[in-house]
Parts: sequence; C-alpha cells; structure tokens
Amino acid sequence: MDYKIRAARKEDCKDIARMIMELAVFEKMPDQVKISYKELERDGFCQNPFFECLIAEVSDAHRSKCGHTVVGYALYFYTYSTWKGRTVYLEDLYVMPEFRGNGIGKSLMSKVAKIAAEKQCVRLQLSVLDWNSPARDFYAAKGAQDLTDSEGWHFIRFDGLSLDNLVKEAPQD
Amino acid sequence: MDYKIRAARKEDCKDIARMIMELAVFEKMPDQVKISYKELERDGFCQNPFFECLIAEVSDAHRSKCGHTVVGYALYFYTYSTWKGRTVYLEDLYVMPEFRGNGIGKSLMSKVAKIAAEKQCVRLQLSVLDWNSPARDFYAAKGAQDLTDSEGWHFIRFDGLSLDNLVKEAPQD
Repeated sequence: MDYKIRAARKEDCKDIARMIMELAVFEKMPDQVKISYKELERDGFCQNPFFECLIAEVSDAHRSKCGHTVVGYALYFYTYSTWKGRTVYLEDLYVMPEFRGNGIGKSLMSKVAKIAAEKQCVRLQLSVLDWNSPARDFYAAKGAQDLTDSEGWHFIRFDGLSLDNLVKEAPQD
Repeated sequence: MDYKIRAARKEDCKDIARMIMELAVFEKMPDQVKISYKELERDGFCQNPFFECLIAEVSDAHRSKCGHTVVGYALYFYTYSTWKGRTVYLEDLYVMPEFRGNGIGKSLMSKVAKIAAEKQCVRLQLSVLDWNSPARDFYAAKGAQDLTDSEGWHFIRFDGLSLDNLVKEAPQD
C-alpha cells in the first residue's frame, strides 16, 4: 500500500486529536484525554512549539472505512540528557488498526530518528505500558533497551493538587 | 543558611558540569557522563535552548569545603502530553551533600513548578531509580504518583547502533 510520511500541518490537528483518542482507547485510558485539536493547534504551531508531529497519509483510493486518509502519526519533542546530550522523545506512535502490517509505524519511527539525528540527537526515548507486548517486542527486536528493567528507572508525576502545592511552596523572587 | 535560587547563566556551566558528575557518582553510573560544560553552554544558551536550569547559590561565607558557592541545580525542559498538554520535565535535581537539610532541593523543585505553571504546564514529571528510597520517599510525601508502579509505564531507549539502524531505515523524502 502506498503511503506518504510528511510533517503535520495545523489543519491536521483534528485528525491527530482523533487518533490520540483511538490510541488512548487502546491503552485503556480514554477518560484521561483532556485536550482537543485546539490545544494541539496552539501548542504545536506557535513560535517555539511544544512538539513536532509526522503524519502518515494514504491516497483517496486507500482511505479508511470511515473515510480518513490520515492514518497514523508520530508526535515527538526534544529533551536533554545531562549525561549524553540532545535526545528526541517519541511521545506517541500510532497507526490505525486497518492499516497495520504495511511498515507505516516503522517508517514513522525511522523518520523521527532521522530528523533527530540531523539535530545531533544521540538518543531516541519513549515509554510503553508493561502489558503492551506487541509494542515491547517491536522495540526490543529493533535493539532498544528497557531502562526500567535494566537500570530500575521509574516515572514520577506531580499534577493537580500535588503540583499546586509545589507551586505554592516556591521561594519568592 | 541563606541561599539564592536564580536562573543559570552561561558562566555557570562549569559548576553545573561538576555537579552533574557528582550526581552520576551518587547514581552509581559516573562512566555514563559523556558531556562537558562546553556542550551545556552550546545546548542551553542558544536560540531555542534544549534545557533551562536553576542554580542554588550560597554566600562566600558559606562556601563549600572546596570553595564552591554554587551548591545545587535543577535542570529541566518542556515536554508534551497528548492527553493533558504542556508538561515540565525535571531532568536533574541535586544539592551537594554538605548543604542538604536546608530546604534547598525543595526550593529548587518548587521554583521549577512555579515557572512551569506560568507557562500553563499541568504536570511536572521526572524519573528516579528504584533503589533511591530517600528521593522516592521525598516525592511520594509531596503527593507524586509513581506511574511505573501504578500504571506500568516503562522507559525505552534507542541509542548507538540501535539508533543508527533506525535512521538508516528512514524513508527517503
């Protein structure tokens, strides 16, 4: 199947928001999604955007059962390792189920890696749920390390009240 | 003990690099540190910097045994959640051992939270090693969630050969 990988444009944000929800349903946490295409437009297509995004697009002839031609996305941003330097973080990688098995996910991820390499990034990082064996196997087969298993790194999050409390404790300028 | 929290300046990078190594020694992975103050200067003090940094500074009267007045740092950057939006990621939080117990770490973290809240960030995230109980207890006491324990998120990394292989597989433009 022919498909094209290209940088997302502002007008793709409705498609991206749709697929973000599809991915969250797969990850069994759809009620966690609180943002809409409007926030994506604001945060991804401003000066100093908070993220970048690639889109996988098929021709009209191959559009999905529901009529979509944007069938996958990779959303990423740049982070920093104080040990190794510039890093790219792949926040989301998604291909609609009916388009899987065509190498689209692999192409999206490789293209992110290539863009990052051009920016002198030395790492590509992401996170995955422990029960998502297909994804874990896919990353492992490509040589990725699971840092939680091998070194014991855990994700910690402050939000809501715990974040508000931190903010309140900040020293005055 | 009096101390000041302030934004890092380019000339602080030698002190930051020194403390990055001290933290890596504590984390039992000093051989992993491959960057020097020169990369920090390049990546943190350019247009669209890859990170921001706060410094804790004491007066000359309180300088360390080795003569340092920059005694702690918090290095952070902005990431993005496709479920919740703008997020700040605290890559490193460190206070020199002889200055601990004075609330400096708490002040650094709270100040990062405050700066992030002003940028409409709704989360502060970080990672911690499973054996680092003092840090884990500190975050838990402040209301943070351990997402690896509660939801099963694992860190995945591509670097070196596995990253090179991804780059090679990228589709041509």
